[in-house]
Amino acid sequence: MSTADHFVNAHTSDVDITDTYVIGVDYGTLSGRALVVRVSDGAELASAVHEYEHAVIERTLPASGAKLPPDWALQDPDDYREVLRRTVPEALAAAGVAPEQVIGIGVDFTACTVLPTLTDGTPLCELPEFRDRPHAYVKLWKHHAAQPQADRINELAHERDEPWIGRYGGKISSEWEYAKGLQLLEEDPEIYRRTERWIEAADWITWQLTGVETRNACTAGYKGILQDGARPNDGYLAALGPGFVGFTAKLEHPISPLGARAGGLTKEAAGWTGLLEGTAVCVGNVDAHVTAPAVKAVEPGRMVAIMGTSTCHVVSGPGGTEPADVAGMCGVVDGGIIAGLWGYEAGQSGVGDIFGWFVNRFVGPELHAQAIERGVSIHELLTEQAQEQPVGGHGLVALDWQSGNRSVLVDHALSGVILGLTLATEPHEVYRSLLEATAFGTRVIIEALKAGGVEVTEYIAAGGLTKNSFLMQMYADVLRCPVSLAGSAQAPALGSAIHAAVAAGAYADVPEAAHAMGSLIPAAYLPDPDRSAAYDLLFAEYLTLHDYFGRGGNDVLHRLHEIKAGIQK
Amino acid sequence: MSTADHFVNAHTSDVDITDTYVIGVDYGTLSGRALVVRVSDGAELASAVHEYEHAVIERTLPASGAKLPPDWALQDPDDYREVLRRTVPEALAAAGVAPEQVIGIGVDFTACTVLPTLTDGTPLCELPEFRDRPHAYVKLWKHHAAQPQADRINELAHERDEPWIGRYGGKISSEWEYAKGLQLLEEDPEIYRRTERWIEAADWITWQLTGVETRNACTAGYKGILQDGARPNDGYLAALGPGFVGFTAKLEHPISPLGARAGGLTKEAAGWTGLLEGTAVCVGNVDAHVTAPAVKAVEPGRMVAIMGTSTCHVVSGPGGTEPADVAGMCGVVDGGIIAGLWGYEAGQSGVGDIFGWFVNRFVGPELHAQAIERGVSIHELLTEQAQEQPVGGHGLVALDWQSGNRSVLVDHALSGVILGLTLATEPHEVYRSLLEATAFGTRVIIEALKAGGVEVTEYIAAGGLTKNSFLMQMYADVLRCPVSLAGSAQAPALGSAIHAAVAAGAYADVPEAAHAMGSLIPAAYLPDPDRSAAYDLLFAEYLTLHDYFGRGGNDVLHRLHEIKAGIQK
Repeated sequence: MSTADHFVNAHTSDVDITDTYVIGVDYGTLSGRALVVRVSDGAELASAVHEYEHAVIERTLPASGAKLPPDWALQDPDDYREVLRRTVPEALAAAGVAPEQVIGIGVDFTACTVLPTLTDGTPLCELPEFRDRPHAYVKLWKHHAAQPQADRINELAHERDEPWIGRYGGKISSEWEYAKGLQLLEEDPEIYRRTERWIEAADWITWQLTGVETRNACTAGYKGILQDGARPNDGYLAALGPGFVGFTAKLEHPISPLGARAGGLTKEAAGWTGLLEGTAVCVGNVDAHVTAPAVKAVEPGRMVAIMGTSTCHVVSGPGGTEPADVAGMCGVVDGGIIAGLWGYEAGQSGVGDIFGWFVNRFVGPELHAQAIERGVSIHELLTEQAQEQPVGGHGLVALDWQSGNRSVLVDHALSGVILGLTLATEPHEVYRSLLEATAFGTRVIIEALKAGGVEVTEYIAAGGLTKNSFLMQMYADVLRCPVSLAGSAQAPALGSAIHAAVAAGAYADVPEAAHAMGSLIPAAYLPDPDRSAAYDLLFAEYLTLHDYFGRGGNDVLHRLHEIKAGIQK
Repeated sequence: MSTADHFVNAHTSDVDITDTYVIGVDYGTLSGRALVVRVSDGAELASAVHEYEHAVIERTLPASGAKLPPDWALQDPDDYREVLRRTVPEALAAAGVAPEQVIGIGVDFTACTVLPTLTDGTPLCELPEFRDRPHAYVKLWKHHAAQPQADRINELAHERDEPWIGRYGGKISSEWEYAKGLQLLEEDPEIYRRTERWIEAADWITWQLTGVETRNACTAGYKGILQDGARPNDGYLAALGPGFVGFTAKLEHPISPLGARAGGLTKEAAGWTGLLEGTAVCVGNVDAHVTAPAVKAVEPGRMVAIMGTSTCHVVSGPGGTEPADVAGMCGVVDGGIIAGLWGYEAGQSGVGDIFGWFVNRFVGPELHAQAIERGVSIHELLTEQAQEQPVGGHGLVALDWQSGNRSVLVDHALSGVILGLTLATEPHEVYRSLLEATAFGTRVIIEALKAGGVEVTEYIAAGGLTKNSFLMQMYADVLRCPVSLAGSAQAPALGSAIHAAVAAGAYADVPEAAHAMGSLIPAAYLPDPDRSAAYDLLFAEYLTLHDYFGRGGNDVLHRLHEIKAGIQK
C-alpha cells in the first residue's frame, strides 16, 4: 500500500494563499464536525466534534412530549447552529490558527434533510405557536413516513410519463423534498401554508452563516427534482392534489454551482464561530458528493464510494446537454458533483448494516468468546477465518438485499438470499459470502454505468469499511479495477474545506483545489488475476440470481414481503 | 392429545400367550437395547442398553492403530454379541420374567450395515490374520467411502437400462451392499476372495443366535437389490469389473418373509442371553421398517416417519405383481415392511441435523444465555419464540437441503437455501423457516406417492423430534393430515418383539400381532384449516424453488458444489 500523495499544485488564482486556512463543517446524522485545513496543501490541522443535543427525534417531540408515529425522524435546527458555536472556535484554537488567517468556510450535510422556514430563514419550529407541531421541525433524511406520498408521486409520474422520472432510476424516494412536502401538506395544512421556504438543511445553515438564501446545484438536482432548469410542473402537482400547486414556489431560487461563494459571514455568525465578519462562505453541499474532491475524484470515471452501513456511489461523466441513460441510478444531475459534469449517484441500501446484522444475531457464543479473548472484534475474527479460504471454498452465493436494493433495481421489497448452505457451513463462510455479495452488488452498478456509456476506471473507497483490508482487496478482485483509498479520515469535512477555498478565490475551481488539497492513497489494492477469475464464476451466479429474483423471473421475494406485510397490518 | 390406545385383539393362534413374553433387540449406531414385552398386550416391562465398546471406528483401527481414510465408518461385530450378553439378562432380571416365560426374540438393526464372513458365519475380522485389515470389519451404514463405486454402479445401470434401478429412485446408495462390496473387491482383493458370505448385520446377529444363516426380505430388497426374485446379473457385474462376477453368490440365500422363524436359540446363545435353548428367533429386520408394526401401521396408507437427525419414511401400498411408479423413493420392495404388501421407503437426509447445525453455529450468545437462565434448551427457546408468530410472519422460505436431498430428487450435491432475509430477521425466524422446510420436504414426498397412486392418509411420527409439539402441529398443518405419535419411546425394539411373537406362533401374522401389541397415539395433532391455508402459500413458493434449484431450472447449487469440490481436491 502506498502512502497518501499529498502534493501541492501551482494555484492559478491571484489570492495569496500562504499561511491561509479554510474550515469545512460536516453535518452528520448525530453530530457535526469542524476541520481546519491549510489552503496550500490540504493539511488537516485540527478538528472538533459536537453531538446534537436532541440527536434524532424519533419517538416524542421534546417540546410537548407528543408521540411521533412510526418512521418519523426529526431534528432541531438550533442543534446545527450549536455545532458552529462549539466546534469552529474549538478547532481553531486547537489548530493555533487566527481568525484573520481563515479565508473561507463551507458546509456539507446529510440529505435530503429539509425544513420549513419563513422568508427570513426562521424555522417554523422556532415560532412559539409551532413549537409543539412535529411538522414544523426538520425532517431528517431517514424520516420515512412519506412513503404513501412517494408512492403516488411515482405512480403519477409514470402515468403521465414525466420527463424527469428517468433521471431518478424511475423512482423518487420518500426521503426527498417533494414527498416530504406532500406529507406536510396533507397532514398539517396550516404549517404547509405558513411554509414560505422549503429548504435543505445544507442551504439553511449556509443562509444562517451569510444572511442570504442560496440553493446549491447538488441538492436541487438530487433531492429537489430540478432537471434541465425545470421542476415538476403545476399540471402534475395539481394531479397529486389541488393544494400542492405552487409547492415549487417554496423551492424556487437561482441555483449556485458547487464551489460558488454564497456570501460573507454575518456579524452574528462571526460571533458564533469566532471568525471575521465577511469571511467567504461557500454554498452548501451533500456529505457523499463533497467527498469526491476530497479524494481528487474530479474527473470522469473516478467512482467514489462512501462505504458504511450503506454505500453511496458518486461518479462524474462528461458534461453535455444530455446525460447517459443509466437505469437504476439514485439520480443524475448536471453539475451535481463537479460543475460542468453530469453527476451520477447510485447506492446500495445495505452494506455494513448487513455485516452487523449477521454478527450481532447469527454468530454463536464460542466465536464471540474467542474474539473477546483475542482482543479483536467479531468482524476481525470472522474476516481472519474467512480469508484463509480460497475463492469459492465456502460453496455459497448470497444476494445482498437484506435492506432492499437501491441500485440498480430500485426495489425495497426485495430481501436477502443465501444459497449453498451445508451442515459443514460455518459462520465465517456465511460472513464472507455476505461481504462478497456487496462487492457483486457494486459490480452490477458499475457494469450498468458502463453499459450506459459512463466510464468507471477507478474505485475510490471512503468511510468506515475501508479499514477492512480483506474487504478492500475483495472489491479490487471482484471489480477487476484498482481500489484507491481516501487519504483523510474526515473526507467530507475536507471536501467542504476545499469548496470553501474555491469560494474564497484561492483556486480557480474545485478540480484545481481538489488536486492541491485532496488526499488519496491511489491504487492501494490491485486486482489479482487468479482471484478475479475465480470471483467471475461466483459473480455469474450472483447475476443470474439477481435477475431471477429481482427482475420478475420469480417474484417470491415480493410475495413473501406482501404476506408478511399483510400479517403485520 | 389422546392417550395411547393399547388394546388387546383376540389372538387367532393356538399358542397360549397368557403370561408369556418376547424380547426385541434394537441395534442402533452407538448402542443396542433389549426390551421385554408382554405378548398379550405389548406392555413394556423393562429394557436395558449397552454401548458398543468400539462405538464407530472412523479414524484408526483399534487392532493396529492404522489410520482410516476419510468417510470410513466401521464396527466390531463382537460388540453386537456383547449387547446380547449384557442387555438381555439385565432386562429380564429387571422385568422379573423367567426364561421359561420368554417365547421369542427378534432383532432389528441399522442398515445397510454389512460384513464379510466365512460360510460358518465367522467374521473375517475375527480371523487373526485379518485383525489389522480395515476391509475385514463391519462397514456401518454411514461408511461413505464407496461413493466412486456407487457412481459407477448407477451410471452403468442407467446405461444398460437395468430393470431394477427404477425401484431405487434411479440411484443405488454408496451405503448399500453392492457399492460396499465393489469397494472391498477393488481395495482389498484378498479379503474379497476370502469373503464367503457378504451379510447384513441384522442377518448375521440372527445367525449368531440360531446357528443358521437366514436372509430377510427387507434388507435383501432395500439394500441388496433383490427385485422380482433376481439380483443384478453377471453381464452387468462383469461390466463393472470382471472380478465382480460372482459377487451375487456371496449374498444368495432363500429369502425369509418378515416375521418368519429363523430358528431356535443355540446353546451358546442361550448362555449369552440367559434364555432357554430353542427359544424362537425371528428373522432380522431394519430399525425403521420394524417401527411400522410397533405403531400398528400395517395397512396401506399409514406412513411412519422416524424423525431424528434425518427422517426415514416407510409406507405400505397394496400388494400385486408391480408396485406403483413413484419417482425418488429410496426403495420399493415386495414385503419390505409387511409381507404381502409393497413397501415404499423414502427419506429426508437432513432434518434434526439441520436444526442442530443452525442452533450450534448461528444463534448468538444472548439467546444461549437466556436459554441457560430459563433452564430450557436452545431448541425449546427458539421454538417458543417462533410459535408466537403467525404463519408467514417471518417472510422466509427455506430449502431443507443442507445435507442434500434424498427423496424425491435423490441428489446429494444440492445444498440449503434461505430467502427473505431482512435486517429485522431474528434467529428464531430462520429456525422456524428450517422447521417448515422439512415439513414442506415431507409434503413433496407424500404428494409424489399420491401422484404415483400410493395413498397416504395418516402421518405417524416416531423418533426424537416428536417431543416438539409445535413441530408436530406444523407437520399436521402443512401435510393437511392427522399426525399420530408412536406410543412407545422404544418403538423399534417393540417392533422386533412383535415380530418375535409372530415367529413364536403367538399370532397368525405381523398385522394381527401389531394390533394386539403395537402402541399408537392416534391423531394426536389435527390440521388447523386456517394455518393449513396459510402454509399452502409458503409451500407453493417452496415447490417452485424446489423445482427451479432441484430440477435443472438453475443448476447453481451443483456448480457451487463443483467449485468447492474442485478447490478441496
